[in-house]
Amino acid sequence: MIKTPAIVLVKPQMGENIGMCARAMLNCGLTDLRIVAPRDGWPSAPAEAAASGAFDKGVVARLYDTTADAIADCTYVLATTANTRDMVKDVFTARESAVRLRAETGQAAVLFGPERTGLGNEDIALAGGLVTIPLNPGFTSLNLAQAVLLVSYEWFTAVDTTAPAQFRTGGAELADAAVISGLVSRLEEEMDRGGFFRSEELRPTLMRNLLSFFARSRMTHQEAQTFHGIVSALIGLRRK
Amino acid sequence: MIKTPAIVLVKPQMGENIGMCARAMLNCGLTDLRIVAPRDGWPSAPAEAAASGAFDKGVVARLYDTTADAIADCTYVLATTANTRDMVKDVFTARESAVRLRAETGQAAVLFGPERTGLGNEDIALAGGLVTIPLNPGFTSLNLAQAVLLVSYEWFTAVDTTAPAQFRTGGAELADAAVISGLVSRLEEEMDRGGFFRSEELRPTLMRNLLSFFARSRMTHQEAQTFHGIVSALIGLRRK
Repeated sequence: MIKTPAIVLVKPQMGENIGMCARAMLNCGLTDLRIVAPRDGWPSAPAEAAASGAFDKGVVARLYDTTADAIADCTYVLATTANTRDMVKDVFTARESAVRLRAETGQAAVLFGPERTGLGNEDIALAGGLVTIPLNPGFTSLNLAQAVLLVSYEWFTAVDTTAPAQFRTGGAELADAAVISGLVSRLEEEMDRGGFFRSEELRPTLMRNLLSFFARSRMTHQEAQTFHGIVSALIGLRRK
Repeated sequence: MIKTPAIVLVKPQMGENIGMCARAMLNCGLTDLRIVAPRDGWPSAPAEAAASGAFDKGVVARLYDTTADAIADCTYVLATTANTRDMVKDVFTARESAVRLRAETGQAAVLFGPERTGLGNEDIALAGGLVTIPLNPGFTSLNLAQAVLLVSYEWFTAVDTTAPAQFRTGGAELADAAVISGLVSRLEEEMDRGGFFRSEELRPTLMRNLLSFFARSRMTHQEAQTFHGIVSALIGLRRK
């Protein structure tokens, strides 16, 4: 079994943010959380509260003194950074990083820096590559858990096998073409009786457009019945 | 210039969450925030504080009484939902939704429900399609701002395009939501007068389904006119 990437929080400040990171991770199937020298200590009640149960449901948090300790078993390490640095490294977008992380057969890790300052150069130096999350250049203001969420989400969706866009009917049966043309024919008949077509010239185009409307609507059987009922109500068949 | 999609928060509870949503949006270049009946009121000091300056740097927030008001000018509306519903709609992943949103030439909008409950069926009925964010099925616990972030991020990063499959109107103008709800209201009125509702119990579901049908139909202005004409013709029969 492939190991999932570790998320390494380097010197995070608020316990609440650690909890939010755990929650973001587990949403995306990540469970290996490594915490380096957290300012407010560990374990942490605010972290527990903010995690929405993520620590009970799968996320395992471990505490380390240094970044080097935290990544000691890793074969591939990426460092997240908002700015390009004058270091010689591969730079990936978050989406590209997911592909790289998925390809790693050993233990991979992604480093995230403290809330205010981000990762320092000494931590970035430990990484094999950099990750930048593409964002609005005029307003780059992700919080720590949001950055963790986006990287984790990209990792999760890199094998997203969710079926592509589909039309969902919730079990309802779709009307077939005969039902639809039957409805449109009845409509035309009643429109005729109601004096809709003041000029015969307009009829072919208008009826074609109406059929086209219903044909593209992906109407269910139930909806076709409803329309028949509406026509009946409007023409007064139901008036008693 | 293409309009950016509006983010519509339906009955959000905490001001702080609204602020976090604004912050998430602007990170991804979105600025059109529409707030429907926020529990804790608007404007909001906690929202301002949580926004990290997003309201000063580009996000414009507007307040509405109802979801229908908030989307009145929209030609394409998506509803986010964690669960599949028994509604007849296109279903997109967040990534697919971005392609679809980019393809819309009119005003698009994405609806997000209240923190605890998500969107109700009456709001989902207003949408032309659904968005689900693919997540760990064992732990689906995004907060509101995180859901907004992921949808916004997908929109922002979807800039690459090869033209997606688009809905072609042949130059016809699409009806906006106000036109569609106006048509459905008139239909209901005439259905009532025609004795359609033999039982009042059925009315809410039936009308919601009818609205849902027209909301997903991508009706043009011309087609809306035609339907009004049909209704007029049919009710004319009743009077004779």
